[in-house]
Amino acid sequence: MNTFGERFRLSIFGESHGAAVGVVLDGLPPGFAPDMEAVREQMRRRRPGQGEHTTARQEADEPEILSGLFEGKTTGAPLCCILRNADTRSGDYAPHLPRPGHADLASFAKYKGFADYRGGGHFSGRLTAPLVFAGALARQLLPGVSVTAGIREIGGHPAGDGCRTDVILAAKQDGDSVGGVIACKVEGLPAGLGEPFFGSVESRLAALLFSIPAVKAAEFDDGIRLAGLRGSESNRYPFGVLGGITSGKTLSFSVWVKPTPSVALEQDTVDLRTGLPAKLTVKGRHDPCIVPRAVPVVEAVAAVGLLDLWLIAGFPL
Amino acid sequence: MNTFGERFRLSIFGESHGAAVGVVLDGLPPGFAPDMEAVREQMRRRRPGQGEHTTARQEADEPEILSGLFEGKTTGAPLCCILRNADTRSGDYAPHLPRPGHADLASFAKYKGFADYRGGGHFSGRLTAPLVFAGALARQLLPGVSVTAGIREIGGHPAGDGCRTDVILAAKQDGDSVGGVIACKVEGLPAGLGEPFFGSVESRLAALLFSIPAVKAAEFDDGIRLAGLRGSESNRYPFGVLGGITSGKTLSFSVWVKPTPSVALEQDTVDLRTGLPAKLTVKGRHDPCIVPRAVPVVEAVAAVGLLDLWLIAGFPL
Amino acid sequence: MNTFGERFRLSIFGESHGAAVGVVLDGLPPGFAPDMEAVREQMRRRRPGQGEHTTARQEADEPEILSGLFEGKTTGAPLCCILRNADTRSGDYAPHLPRPGHADLASFAKYKGFADYRGGGHFSGRLTAPLVFAGALARQLLPGVSVTAGIREIGGHPAGDGCRTDVILAAKQDGDSVGGVIACKVEGLPAGLGEPFFGSVESRLAALLFSIPAVKAAEFDDGIRLAGLRGSESNRYPFGVLGGITSGKTLSFSVWVKPTPSVALEQDTVDLRTGLPAKLTVKGRHDPCIVPRAVPVVEAVAAVGLLDLWLIAGFPL
Amino acid sequence: MNTFGERFRLSIFGESHGAAVGVVLDGLPPGFAPDMEAVREQMRRRRPGQGEHTTARQEADEPEILSGLFEGKTTGAPLCCILRNADTRSGDYAPHLPRPGHADLASFAKYKGFADYRGGGHFSGRLTAPLVFAGALARQLLPGVSVTAGIREIGGHPAGDGCRTDVILAAKQDGDSVGGVIACKVEGLPAGLGEPFFGSVESRLAALLFSIPAVKAAEFDDGIRLAGLRGSESNRYPFGVLGGITSGKTLSFSVWVKPTPSVALEQDTVDLRTGLPAKLTVKGRHDPCIVPRAVPVVEAVAAVGLLDLWLIAGFPL
Repeated sequence: MNTFGERFRLSIFGESHGAAVGVVLDGLPPGFAPDMEAVREQMRRRRPGQGEHTTARQEADEPEILSGLFEGKTTGAPLCCILRNADTRSGDYAPHLPRPGHADLASFAKYKGFADYRGGGHFSGRLTAPLVFAGALARQLLPGVSVTAGIREIGGHPAGDGCRTDVILAAKQDGDSVGGVIACKVEGLPAGLGEPFFGSVESRLAALLFSIPAVKAAEFDDGIRLAGLRGSESNRYPFGVLGGITSGKTLSFSVWVKPTPSVALEQDTVDLRTGLPAKLTVKGRHDPCIVPRAVPVVEAVAAVGLLDLWLIAGFPL
Repeated sequence: MNTFGERFRLSIFGESHGAAVGVVLDGLPPGFAPDMEAVREQMRRRRPGQGEHTTARQEADEPEILSGLFEGKTTGAPLCCILRNADTRSGDYAPHLPRPGHADLASFAKYKGFADYRGGGHFSGRLTAPLVFAGALARQLLPGVSVTAGIREIGGHPAGDGCRTDVILAAKQDGDSVGGVIACKVEGLPAGLGEPFFGSVESRLAALLFSIPAVKAAEFDDGIRLAGLRGSESNRYPFGVLGGITSGKTLSFSVWVKPTPSVALEQDTVDLRTGLPAKLTVKGRHDPCIVPRAVPVVEAVAAVGLLDLWLIAGFPL
Repeated sequence: MNTFGERFRLSIFGESHGAAVGVVLDGLPPGFAPDMEAVREQMRRRRPGQGEHTTARQEADEPEILSGLFEGKTTGAPLCCILRNADTRSGDYAPHLPRPGHADLASFAKYKGFADYRGGGHFSGRLTAPLVFAGALARQLLPGVSVTAGIREIGGHPAGDGCRTDVILAAKQDGDSVGGVIACKVEGLPAGLGEPFFGSVESRLAALLFSIPAVKAAEFDDGIRLAGLRGSESNRYPFGVLGGITSGKTLSFSVWVKPTPSVALEQDTVDLRTGLPAKLTVKGRHDPCIVPRAVPVVEAVAAVGLLDLWLIAGFPL
Repeated sequence: MNTFGERFRLSIFGESHGAAVGVVLDGLPPGFAPDMEAVREQMRRRRPGQGEHTTARQEADEPEILSGLFEGKTTGAPLCCILRNADTRSGDYAPHLPRPGHADLASFAKYKGFADYRGGGHFSGRLTAPLVFAGALARQLLPGVSVTAGIREIGGHPAGDGCRTDVILAAKQDGDSVGGVIACKVEGLPAGLGEPFFGSVESRLAALLFSIPAVKAAEFDDGIRLAGLRGSESNRYPFGVLGGITSGKTLSFSVWVKPTPSVALEQDTVDLRTGLPAKLTVKGRHDPCIVPRAVPVVEAVAAVGLLDLWLIAGFPL
């Protein structure tokens, strides 16, 4: 369901064009005074409307904390934070024409036509805003740990310079979109987090990373390259995780993000009312490339998962 | 911990050189008569000692069912199956010399030196035997679903012919090992399995796939290739999962397996008794390439995860 | 933590004098159109300020649904409902003087002094408002099931006439309070809900019933009386639950509620600042007897637990 | 399902007349050397065949530990313990004649006739043997905590002298059975265990206590008596749990156990093959009163639940 975590647990809710999206965080230690300016900075990193390579939709994303915070400090009780939705243009969506590459058809099968289709509803990338909020708190709590993600590729091009907005803008000009690859490094983790098998660091983080819309592959510790080496070479690699458990060395992982499915070009679809082929031009305001905005989301879910593993292991905060 | 699943739940236990490995399966429907010959066939596929490219260790792996089966049919109560360990040579292991690329050091940090180190203990690939048993039951229960994995690469070489034993034997001759890539296809899944976010099909399967020792990367739906395409191209891909939910199309995924860390060559390590650098030659009988034996394990955990998602979705068996 | 349920899951949050209390409901089937007037009626039953035997605090308790409802129907995504707090008088509380019979001292041990102490904070009976909201939806979903609780005793006196306000008012006049006993009957349950052992109907419902503040005992199927009979007599009892599983007969249970700990009389306590004995007169507006307002709460949590068991069993809604 | 616990988790399995009953314990700390003689002593307390007031069935109940123990110490990996079944007389059972007061009919509804009916199958009190094993380890781990249960009533008679075998033997002579009440005291618990609401100490322990076959009521802290007092009196009670959280004072609770449903007298039932009324005389060897053997079971599940709460709270062992 929409809940993750054992000792640091989050439940997310909301739809793109509903009243609000939000999250309930359970397991926060009492007496923690979140640096709200740092939280807002994380929200800003994810926020759209910050340049010509992102959607023009404006969202204030000012966290409204309803519980769990008293006189600026966590109480130990669940903290609920909501982010009001604003600047929605719901008229842009046609629910009978499922958008290729989107969850529309799968959602129809699961929710029997009752899902809120506007802007992708509950499937929207908008739901990553509460994830970033959760991660912003989690990273402040992890003592001596830094979580830093960056863009590795955009549209198949290495992103040595940080982003390759040239590739993004070329796609945008064509009414098209591109995906990319994000790499993340976590420094400062102690040895001993995680469990063999189902509770492995890779299992827990992968479950979170694949929760991010559009992520379709994940690699830990240069695993793809290592699979082509010999054991004598591979054994020299400084693994961040072995046997599912942190080694005390830097933990590295990467995720692959598919291109934004909302493109301005005309596409083929099926009219759900008639079952006949139809043409569709997706309207609305969309990112030609979601990758830059996904960078803080990757960091956030990593921090969330690691804080949970930290508490499970019984390490002090 | 060592438990996975919500409506079809498995708890695995055991160490490589202990009395037995095993699994408790909860949530099996009553009245199911497992085809035990088909179960044994799956166990055989994983079993070592079947050729010069695998370890010489012999294991009978005859499942001993202690509960949950009555007159050849499941009762609906938990089914416990144990697999006795045999042909162990515990003298081959030196606990004070952690083996490079193995979980030994991470395990030491977590278990404070009390883990059963013989043959990797609880971290051993031996624990995949109960996984294969669980998967062998799960696949019989999934109506009209086929789960078929195969080798895609060995040691960096495409495995068009099925296995590339040449590459494996070359590594073996050098006292070395190789890894590889396994691809899996699942046909016959209905649309509507899975959930957005943390309960996504990718999240659930990835958590299981990364439970398999040596798996370090996972891809769904050709995600790595798609990340380099434009949206207009990517949208034409026949996704098996969209928004975390099955689409009704074939579900494809691949995993990357690092080379067996146990190699016959001398390696550098640290003596835990003195903290000083030391030389280590790993003894014992090991697979120069674990990939062929991992193929049925990949199928098994996929079947386990899909049966759980199937029951969660309330689909009939 | 603050989450309950496997297939119908609720996460509650909030403090008595914070911005709001609320609940996230996950697992609601899509396409369900809640009768909001019936929901409001349940909220009204629990609401204070309805007579001289309850607290004078006024709460509108109009549910504000932030997600999961679209065009009046559930979407299948999580439904978040908040209830704003109003008419709070936070000045009435002295955090350094723990109130006898309240959670204050235990809360201090657990939350290290950071809990929101105003009005009991997260421990407040105010948190039962979101439980009643959750139950109001759950009972609408359970087909053919009725859940009906009533007062059995007040302050040790049988409540044949429904409430015994005489006993309550006598206590109130003395600046004191009383507790009581609530009995509940559930009609229309099919046979086959629940599991042996940890998932038994009694285990699941008891976990919920003991979540209600002040509940200190629970009985199923006249269990207290039956414990004094002989087996030949007891076996003739129409058990609603046997072996943890519903029998298809009426399910009966009762809970015992201790007296409201907030009394107007002067009491002994300890000053947490000095460690010295102190006198305390609890201020604020309090129910001289919480039992009448707990009746809809008992029904609500029963409905919540039974809907979860219903969905776990895979029964149709 | 058959799993309990978050940080100390147990999965039980087995049927009365199957090969074995057993338990998988996950979350045991590494390096703990169980006192196996003390474990056996707990098993002996529950074992039948120890006098004329218990069943004549003989069980050795020697724990066979398959995993998680190495050189006499826990490894930190799951510990699986099985207890072989012996001295079973399966011919004594007639599956088409459900026994009054037993789970037979409810089981039939749930498991559709496939349950192992011999000796109650998975519903048997035999499953409390692995619970006692689990509790025997848990109580050794809880530092400075004592868990002591005793009989409070047998067949409606106060058990000041410990057991009232006179009442039991009188019932036995009549071919009948009696139930009773067990009270338990836990000394040495620190303040701060448990959570408000669903994770309350009462909620967690009640879920376990109602897992014990035949338990039909549970009371904490003299809750039944307190419900009849005034608040000013009740507030003076030394509560072991307030707001769901331990107070640091002695925790007291009681459970009510219904009479053994297996009585030697002829009873009315229904023949499931014909749907017609039938007469049944339950054969087999049964306890005329299960209460004495349930005493160590009550202690065991309390220790299990408290160890889990202890680990959740992050307290050191």
